[in-house]
Amino acid sequence: MDLHTHSPYLEDIPLEAALHRWWAALAEAGLDAALPGELVPLAEAAGRVTAEPVWALTSSPHYHASAMDGYAVRAEDTLGASETHPLFLQLGTQAFYVDTGEPLPPGSDAVIMLEDVQVHKQDGEEAPLIEILCAAAPWQHVRPMGEDIVATELVLPANHRLRPQDLGAAAGAGHAQLRVRSRPYVAIQPTGTELVAPGAPLRPGDVVEYNSLMLGAMIAEWGGLPNRLPPLADDRAAIRAGLLEAAGTHDLVIVNAGSSAGSEDFTSAVVADLGEVLVHGLAIRPGHPVILGLIKPPPRDQATAPRVVPVIGIPGYPVSAALACELLVKPTIALWLGQVVEPRPSLAATLTRKIASPPGEEEFVRVTVGQVGGRTVATPLPRGAGVLMSLVRADGIVRIPQHEQGYEAGATVTVELYRSPEAIRQTIVVIGSHDLTIDLLAEELARRYPGRRLASANVGSLGGLIALGRCEAHLAGSHLLDEETGEYNVSYIKRVLPDTRVVLLGFVQREQGLIVPKGNPKHIQTLADLTRRDVVFINRQRGAGTRVLLNYRLRQQGIDPHQIQGYDRQEYTHLAVAAAVASGAADAGMGILAAARALGLDFIGTDMERYDLVLPAQFYHDELLAPLLSIVRDPAFAARVRALGGYTTPKIGEVLAEL
Amino acid sequence: MDLHTHSPYLEDIPLEAALHRWWAALAEAGLDAALPGELVPLAEAAGRVTAEPVWALTSSPHYHASAMDGYAVRAEDTLGASETHPLFLQLGTQAFYVDTGEPLPPGSDAVIMLEDVQVHKQDGEEAPLIEILCAAAPWQHVRPMGEDIVATELVLPANHRLRPQDLGAAAGAGHAQLRVRSRPYVAIQPTGTELVAPGAPLRPGDVVEYNSLMLGAMIAEWGGLPNRLPPLADDRAAIRAGLLEAAGTHDLVIVNAGSSAGSEDFTSAVVADLGEVLVHGLAIRPGHPVILGLIKPPPRDQATAPRVVPVIGIPGYPVSAALACELLVKPTIALWLGQVVEPRPSLAATLTRKIASPPGEEEFVRVTVGQVGGRTVATPLPRGAGVLMSLVRADGIVRIPQHEQGYEAGATVTVELYRSPEAIRQTIVVIGSHDLTIDLLAEELARRYPGRRLASANVGSLGGLIALGRCEAHLAGSHLLDEETGEYNVSYIKRVLPDTRVVLLGFVQREQGLIVPKGNPKHIQTLADLTRRDVVFINRQRGAGTRVLLNYRLRQQGIDPHQIQGYDRQEYTHLAVAAAVASGAADAGMGILAAARALGLDFIGTDMERYDLVLPAQFYHDELLAPLLSIVRDPAFAARVRALGGYTTPKIGEVLAEL
Repeated sequence: MDLHTHSPYLEDIPLEAALHRWWAALAEAGLDAALPGELVPLAEAAGRVTAEPVWALTSSPHYHASAMDGYAVRAEDTLGASETHPLFLQLGTQAFYVDTGEPLPPGSDAVIMLEDVQVHKQDGEEAPLIEILCAAAPWQHVRPMGEDIVATELVLPANHRLRPQDLGAAAGAGHAQLRVRSRPYVAIQPTGTELVAPGAPLRPGDVVEYNSLMLGAMIAEWGGLPNRLPPLADDRAAIRAGLLEAAGTHDLVIVNAGSSAGSEDFTSAVVADLGEVLVHGLAIRPGHPVILGLIKPPPRDQATAPRVVPVIGIPGYPVSAALACELLVKPTIALWLGQVVEPRPSLAATLTRKIASPPGEEEFVRVTVGQVGGRTVATPLPRGAGVLMSLVRADGIVRIPQHEQGYEAGATVTVELYRSPEAIRQTIVVIGSHDLTIDLLAEELARRYPGRRLASANVGSLGGLIALGRCEAHLAGSHLLDEETGEYNVSYIKRVLPDTRVVLLGFVQREQGLIVPKGNPKHIQTLADLTRRDVVFINRQRGAGTRVLLNYRLRQQGIDPHQIQGYDRQEYTHLAVAAAVASGAADAGMGILAAARALGLDFIGTDMERYDLVLPAQFYHDELLAPLLSIVRDPAFAARVRALGGYTTPKIGEVLAEL
Repeated sequence: MDLHTHSPYLEDIPLEAALHRWWAALAEAGLDAALPGELVPLAEAAGRVTAEPVWALTSSPHYHASAMDGYAVRAEDTLGASETHPLFLQLGTQAFYVDTGEPLPPGSDAVIMLEDVQVHKQDGEEAPLIEILCAAAPWQHVRPMGEDIVATELVLPANHRLRPQDLGAAAGAGHAQLRVRSRPYVAIQPTGTELVAPGAPLRPGDVVEYNSLMLGAMIAEWGGLPNRLPPLADDRAAIRAGLLEAAGTHDLVIVNAGSSAGSEDFTSAVVADLGEVLVHGLAIRPGHPVILGLIKPPPRDQATAPRVVPVIGIPGYPVSAALACELLVKPTIALWLGQVVEPRPSLAATLTRKIASPPGEEEFVRVTVGQVGGRTVATPLPRGAGVLMSLVRADGIVRIPQHEQGYEAGATVTVELYRSPEAIRQTIVVIGSHDLTIDLLAEELARRYPGRRLASANVGSLGGLIALGRCEAHLAGSHLLDEETGEYNVSYIKRVLPDTRVVLLGFVQREQGLIVPKGNPKHIQTLADLTRRDVVFINRQRGAGTRVLLNYRLRQQGIDPHQIQGYDRQEYTHLAVAAAVASGAADAGMGILAAARALGLDFIGTDMERYDLVLPAQFYHDELLAPLLSIVRDPAFAARVRALGGYTTPKIGEVLAEL
């Protein structure tokens, strides 16, 4: 699998120019028209696209139908009837009983409701009479033939995506099946010796092959029929054989990945060998190492016309893969379905952080979007092409044009939305220090209050307070220890948010402690053990809350940091510390229980650390946050937090301070 | 099938009150929670809803991975390296070759790109050295373990509808399958002796059973699993047995129809008999005869807990059925899936015509929406509950609250959109006289220019000119004969649109003529034959263009209308005239060929009538209409028009006048 984001060996073709080449090549190969159609029964036609216009074969109603239970009459026979001058019509010759929906007998053109007539039985063999007190207007209480659909009229045009009501109308117009566009049949060919199936046990170096799942679901959503092929090893001959076979039976072949220019990136060479490479390298980021090409399989015999099959090489990093698929495969499928790609809904938002972007590439930055205090703010997510979670968390993307160098914080940008504007209005934005219990809160909110959502970004406690000051978040999780006083958060809030009324809400206390190898082979029990000659420590970076806490405790306990081997070696996350311990590079590190658990390590709790919620008063009283606060104050939630292990909740939901 | 729109025997419960009763009854029966989940493989999970949170089982990457082809080193070993002071590391002990994606060997924490080092082979058995010209920053070109996903973190909350990227993230987090909400299993039970399957031959009184197709597709779209049951006759015992059986195996039973209070409307009585009727009659229009109830099937044995199954009686008219399903079934399915119903996108529009609405009912009026000359205008569609085409043609609905009496023309209303705002911007609005060739134009436009759409409303030629004057349409089809001059359209345009610059564009000439029974048994050939004693005529209403034309020709030919039997009997549409001939009530009528064809009648052409297109000059030059004009001027389109029969195209696409 290709994991490059940028290679100097690739071209830098702007997206529009690449698509221009692509459409021209498809047109030359006669592949620029909608696919031929297939007949499907109406019950299977929802969501499909009409391949030809649907004309009405029959009218609906196909006869003049009574719209009421009553008597069908000829309207002109009732002229002059009134309460003072009732008129009498003979049943069976001048008036006929009809139920709702029944056809009007020939000659009649109006219906009088059952409750508006009196039936008079006559003597002998004469038919009963009905007494009419009011003239009937022509066509009253009648659904005339063709009221809904007139035979021969256009019910639906070609290239129309069938909705539920369209199926009803087609049936009403006399159709039992419709000719719909064939679904473009798209091969998805993963390549990479390192690929393993989802759920398989993982050895270092294994990569879970999930791109084809994602790409397949995208293609199905757009109306294509994906075919996920088993992965091929990074072997040029195998890839050549695989692509040739796929080209024989599909409308489009997607190769994922090997589309860059590394030592094991064979896609481009294989496509050149089997046909033609049109584009190798797009001036977009992420998604640069893309291939657009044509495969020309040899005809089976001389009588068969030569076939040309388009092929798209999609990069291996998941975010690149998703973006390239959307930019290239989606419009190709749309073309073949006689559709156009509709632009996503978009909105203007204020950027919370600067985005620097190298000129020369069009960049697509994933952002979260929130409505905070009347402003719509967009916050960039991690931009690594390998960070699929950025696509899971994204509310939309911001495009930075090829020749722009990015945008400053505070700039107004256009966000193409992945979620509806309504979903964004229902989103609570949490920016600050991350903790597993924030995930738990997000989960409870989504489960108990469908439609509500908590979006969190992790920028550390201090970053969270700064975000509150800029009105970029509704609340922040914070565990800032004042080393002078041993008090949490208050002094920091006063300093960072001097002009904002803030509610400091108790949330959880979490256990910090020593992460040690499984089984604790060196029997480490206390901070003092870190000074032992046989123990190598791994520290967090300067400024990290965990390092602040460690220093505070060491001072309290009179331990000299210089006696700790490895005190100066530092990692940047809880998990990196745990990984150093897991790899044997260190015997102990300080961090939270969850990090130890994540890698199956042991944990010796040393400290309970306060992790509070900080809310500007205006949001504390906002209807949007009420469900969240009610969860925080629900004893069942607190019990769930404690069941995680490593947490206590003595002050959860209590207002600790109003500042 | 119930065809009532309103019955005095029903209640008039406001929608909100009815839903309140419904949710309360479901809660009491313990049916107000999301359904339990089922495990599905990721490849089948797209679009499903998570039944539980998805926590990461593993980190992704699950090891420190090289992000480049190069050499893994310990960053601190490279400190001080520069071009003037290169540093040398021994391969195999201090530096290790890694391909992109490969794990970093233990102890290394940075990667130096292949192209940035020089390898020096040494003599004898010593390992080669690599020459480093620049210090490596810790973690450079490394994707640290957990960069994307950290084991134990929340990947997705419960109640989340799975998108393609979510499947990728779940797989990356170690899942091969997910627990998703079961799809609510919904029985759709059509009832009605008159129902026949789509495509079956039709006798008068037969009704095509297409509601279940439409309702089934709606339910599937909302995430339910519809089960369309075979129709039942209007027989109380059969309906009782059917509902009881359906209730035994489904989460929800929909009965369509019989939900009103007519003589053959058994649903309410059967539901009362099997359980409880909560609501019978909603104060909405269309959709009044609705039933909400509970079926309580007898437990199979004493050990089984009693079961309660919700039942919804949906009216028979298709527009009522669609609306009732959307208002009642959609939120019920959403509840069971842990979802909320998102409001449709909406926009403000100016109403082109008055809508009168009886107070006491909340009315839902289908409208077309167009953007004409910078204004957004909404035009009401036919409001009959039986006119399914109004739902096919609708761009959205306007809600008239229960206690409003409607809106005046010119009022600003909120339209809940069925199409995207972008699709509406791409719509050409045609209001005027209808002709089959307008359908053909719509069809060609949609086929040749995907995304473009022609929306037409039929209000007659004069109504079309008036609509142009009000800036409610881009163009109008018109066939207004000036009886004084024998000239078409010009004098009318001058009168109706005195201040508007207008282009009169030649379109088609269509054949008007005499519609006679199949085989023309009375050998009618000319208008003079209409005066024969054995011929009964059927006329169009006063003011109809066809009657104007008939009068004009009769006068030219010196025929006295009073000599024509049936001259005073009138119908309101071409098709109604044809239907009168088909039923034997008349021997001849005047109309267009298409009407004769629709009912399989014979046709004697008597006249070629001009049918022009009228365009305000501003739209004639508008980019939006350019594709349409190019189709009008394409000889292939003209040929297609002529192939319909009954049309000539001598002036098609020519500017006949600029006024």
